[in-house]
Amino acid sequence: MKVLINEDIVDRENTSVDIEDRGYQFGDGVYEVVRVYEGKTYELDGHVERLFRSAKEIDLSLSFTEEGFKQNIENLVKENNLLDGGIYFQITRGVAPRSHSYDRTVAPELVAYPLYFTRPKEKQATGVTAITVEDLRWLRCDIKSLNLLYNVMMKQKAQDEEAFEGIFIRDGIVTEGTSTNIFIVKDGIYKTHPVNNMILNGITRQRIIKLLRENNLEVEEVEFTKEDLFAADEAFISSTTAEVMPICKIDDKKIGDGQVGKKTKEIYDLLINYIG
Amino acid sequence: MKVLINEDIVDRENTSVDIEDRGYQFGDGVYEVVRVYEGKTYELDGHVERLFRSAKEIDLSLSFTEEGFKQNIENLVKENNLLDGGIYFQITRGVAPRSHSYDRTVAPELVAYPLYFTRPKEKQATGVTAITVEDLRWLRCDIKSLNLLYNVMMKQKAQDEEAFEGIFIRDGIVTEGTSTNIFIVKDGIYKTHPVNNMILNGITRQRIIKLLRENNLEVEEVEFTKEDLFAADEAFISSTTAEVMPICKIDDKKIGDGQVGKKTKEIYDLLINYIG
Repeated sequence: MKVLINEDIVDRENTSVDIEDRGYQFGDGVYEVVRVYEGKTYELDGHVERLFRSAKEIDLSLSFTEEGFKQNIENLVKENNLLDGGIYFQITRGVAPRSHSYDRTVAPELVAYPLYFTRPKEKQATGVTAITVEDLRWLRCDIKSLNLLYNVMMKQKAQDEEAFEGIFIRDGIVTEGTSTNIFIVKDGIYKTHPVNNMILNGITRQRIIKLLRENNLEVEEVEFTKEDLFAADEAFISSTTAEVMPICKIDDKKIGDGQVGKKTKEIYDLLINYIG
Repeated sequence: MKVLINEDIVDRENTSVDIEDRGYQFGDGVYEVVRVYEGKTYELDGHVERLFRSAKEIDLSLSFTEEGFKQNIENLVKENNLLDGGIYFQITRGVAPRSHSYDRTVAPELVAYPLYFTRPKEKQATGVTAITVEDLRWLRCDIKSLNLLYNVMMKQKAQDEEAFEGIFIRDGIVTEGTSTNIFIVKDGIYKTHPVNNMILNGITRQRIIKLLRENNLEVEEVEFTKEDLFAADEAFISSTTAEVMPICKIDDKKIGDGQVGKKTKEIYDLLINYIG
């Protein structure tokens, strides 16, 4: 496997991180996962734009341009002959003697490498189950940072309960999944949490909303409650890897009739068609 | 410099972390900083006990005992001939292909190494300034985890404003500093935030409370507001490295008469005397 370290592509076995990398000691960095279909990056612009936004929000200055970085990612895909999967990339605030405060002259450290996975078609066809979990995360969920411990804990809780995803509830409001956004459908209207500090504005979430609007399907970016979730006709989650994933059951309660919903299938088809 | 990696003491230049270490990708781990005075570890029991508690809270199983680990830390102090400073140690959930959920059979990774610093006597004599900052952290601040990004951001904000510390305010309540606990004194009574999910229960905080009680000085573990903070007679912060650090000004407003307070000096003397 080939790995991009800053500007250089090197063999996996020649990579390492310093014990004083701020990513390792503070989770002081930001990341993205971009999808690769049939050897081509998908929505790379959106992911790189968001990476730069996240970096800016944590006051991390990047030495490269979005264009140069995108070229390096494309090269990494080619060097790995990656057909189906994704590229994981993260940037940390570099290596420095441990101190909460930081030195703005220290160079950030970039690592990017391929992930191998395929479209989860079987699960998409049957739908999956989820559990609700309390949203105790920080109040800057709009930043795609490496501080993922609570997401990890709640994803594991879901897995331990044989569910695909944990759905965060904060003060009675459904925010998002541990690594996905969530949509419900009620009376023909798609609904998802509005963009603010409570959620990460998923690239797939954004594409879904655009596709719905282009196809004259009604979608609202509004808060909805846990009760609304259980009373919904349909529910699905979205992410770069899960695409559109129907949710048939949450906390052992059926959503709608417990089958993959018609409206879910409609946006699934639109998205898969868009991906091409 | 000698570094402890799991059970082995190695040279600093022979250390490295894998790019897929979960500490690096998720901040998935816990840590401690223990003080070393005159070549001797201080409050090691308390720090190691808390490390094991933090690990348990994030479902991280450690393969070693508290006793064995303490012996390794003592050896590390000796191997480095460390006289004045501390030992930083962290444990992550080990190396595995990136996935939010984890594999309980993967071995955790421990890193420990010396930090060199001395007692901040000058600052303790004159007192320091602080700023108040909004507490947007997760609601498990009782876990000493590697998810420190927001603490980092607010410590840097304090430093950019030439203050020593940022004091977190959540819903009007003073919780703690970015890497310290905070005490106020009002009408002769010491007050600090009670132990719950809103603060890290500092080892120095615990020692201070014990010393106050042993010396018949009144101390209350109670919530107090930002207004109480500004109306206090005295204020100070505590931590392993700062010990007792007087706060003379917050947000450019004097606390009391803007000098190091009498009650602050009293607990400072008790603590320094205890340390020996």
